[in-house]
Amino acid sequence: MTRFVDVRNMARWAATRGPENILAEMAGYVEDDFRRWEEFDKKPRVASHTPFGVIELMPASDRDTYGFKYVNGHPSNPARGFQTVTAFGALADVHNGYPTFMSEMTLLTAFRTAATSAMVAKKLARPDSKTLALIGAGSQSEFQALAFRSVLGIERLTVWDTDPEAMEKFVRNMAPLGFEIRVASSARDAVRGTDIVTTCTADKANADVLTADMVEPGMHINAMGGDCPGKTELDPVILERGRVFVEFEPQTRIEGEIQQMPADFPVTEFWTVLTSAAPGRTAKNQVTIFDSVGFAIEDFSALRYVRDAVDGTNFYDEIDLVANPEDPKDLFGLIGALVPQT
Amino acid sequence: MTRFVDVRNMARWAATRGPENILAEMAGYVEDDFRRWEEFDKKPRVASHTPFGVIELMPASDRDTYGFKYVNGHPSNPARGFQTVTAFGALADVHNGYPTFMSEMTLLTAFRTAATSAMVAKKLARPDSKTLALIGAGSQSEFQALAFRSVLGIERLTVWDTDPEAMEKFVRNMAPLGFEIRVASSARDAVRGTDIVTTCTADKANADVLTADMVEPGMHINAMGGDCPGKTELDPVILERGRVFVEFEPQTRIEGEIQQMPADFPVTEFWTVLTSAAPGRTAKNQVTIFDSVGFAIEDFSALRYVRDAVDGTNFYDEIDLVANPEDPKDLFGLIGALVPQT
Repeated sequence: MTRFVDVRNMARWAATRGPENILAEMAGYVEDDFRRWEEFDKKPRVASHTPFGVIELMPASDRDTYGFKYVNGHPSNPARGFQTVTAFGALADVHNGYPTFMSEMTLLTAFRTAATSAMVAKKLARPDSKTLALIGAGSQSEFQALAFRSVLGIERLTVWDTDPEAMEKFVRNMAPLGFEIRVASSARDAVRGTDIVTTCTADKANADVLTADMVEPGMHINAMGGDCPGKTELDPVILERGRVFVEFEPQTRIEGEIQQMPADFPVTEFWTVLTSAAPGRTAKNQVTIFDSVGFAIEDFSALRYVRDAVDGTNFYDEIDLVANPEDPKDLFGLIGALVPQT
Repeated sequence: MTRFVDVRNMARWAATRGPENILAEMAGYVEDDFRRWEEFDKKPRVASHTPFGVIELMPASDRDTYGFKYVNGHPSNPARGFQTVTAFGALADVHNGYPTFMSEMTLLTAFRTAATSAMVAKKLARPDSKTLALIGAGSQSEFQALAFRSVLGIERLTVWDTDPEAMEKFVRNMAPLGFEIRVASSARDAVRGTDIVTTCTADKANADVLTADMVEPGMHINAMGGDCPGKTELDPVILERGRVFVEFEPQTRIEGEIQQMPADFPVTEFWTVLTSAAPGRTAKNQVTIFDSVGFAIEDFSALRYVRDAVDGTNFYDEIDLVANPEDPKDLFGLIGALVPQT
């Protein structure tokens, strides 16, 4: 049998374990897997684009475990009452190819994206960072706020979204949790004087959510929303002003902010900072940019973490996903229909 | 909610509907989708190879529906009590990216592989074909036999496998269904005088399951087991003796029997035979070869068929795979853990 965490169990588990505990623990799993980056079989995700959005498969594997995620991205979904991003995924045993664990990953992707942002910012942002500007108050925004508090101790937020109701929702969800929140009047207003900026908007366009004149010395920019061809958030001048860190360069060249730059534009794969093979931030006044598109190893880490975390709990079911006849060569015997069908 | 057909429901449904009915109906779905080949977004599958086997993701989509299959291939599995091939997959709505249908696909892959073989042979084998030789009596063998009876009316079989117990199992399963079966003493003995030959062996090697001197004029060879780099079944001389038909050329060049041939070795994509863009068999004495590796559109067809076939029955469950909060921008609200986690 394959263990399966459905949406209800994921929400119950998240409420019981606590979102900030989850984000801190998951950031640890992601960091562990980034540190052993070279052990993974890595490929750019396989994307199927349509006029409505994109559906992607994201596989990654190490010597023992294979993982993949199914995920969509449909920017026009919220206007029609659907989630922009939904996902599910599975882990399998590399030795026999059997799936061992399956999970909803809509909530899980929200957690892993925020956990990765915070894990990276912990290393790249100025150590004295106290404030976070959130540009975009959609599904990911609360997870970002909680991850930056959980991992970096940041409690002062400014928020901006073109949709006032999204900002109201954000404040309604986050104010009771003890954050100090300022609702800004523009992206420029939100960003002014902050230490870290997360851009997380959904429009599939080459947008200038952040322009170069809004970027202040020493800022860390967590650029998450530019994540497929034709979808960027940063004025390209910003990319020349700071140092750009990426997850998996072959994928980010196609999908990230750097799709706006020449193919030889210099970037640093972030795992090399963790292993000290490359420097991270080298000066207080330096601008650092995490051009994040989301990589399969992060989903692998998130699945691995949830699998471990729900072990021994009642937050999973068992599903009958793998036909396993007693005689492995007698698959047909499973059907048990040994009468002529003529 | 997403509809889900687990192993138990698949086996129950297969027994109730009848394997031969399923094979005939599924062959129709596969043929329909092959006829509209140009409407699909097609890519070679994404394979992750290890010393133990391979795990693959196989996506395909048309304007309305996206499908993918997870499938492994581990030749040493049966010796350890596991299936060589296990699989599961899903369909999704292209317009919003939501998964709508999920199914076990170990049994379903066995059906779709056999249905595809028979659908192709119906077009390429001599119309007067009466006999089928099965080289390999593993999990796929019974499905092959039933598909060739259901689609081509073939009831006379010879079978050969290096494992005597596998042949006994095959006879035990198939003899009660009214087939005339001869157990051969070698591959050569099995093939002699037959009209159609299916090669379906599991060894990951460049094997000569069939050598050129065993091939008789007018034979149709359904070469199924050579399906990944380093795994072939045919003496390459055979490929020069007949006309070679493939599913999706870019994938077959890497995975099929023609991996043994130069990159410009001529092949015909089978869908062009269905649409009359290319000829099929052009002479009674011609040798035709279906160099089959398994393509994502076949899985798409199989999933589509089962989805339609179980509609209105009790052969599926509903699973809670997609987080769908009332306010699509309030994913966090699903967790319901609005208390500080400090």
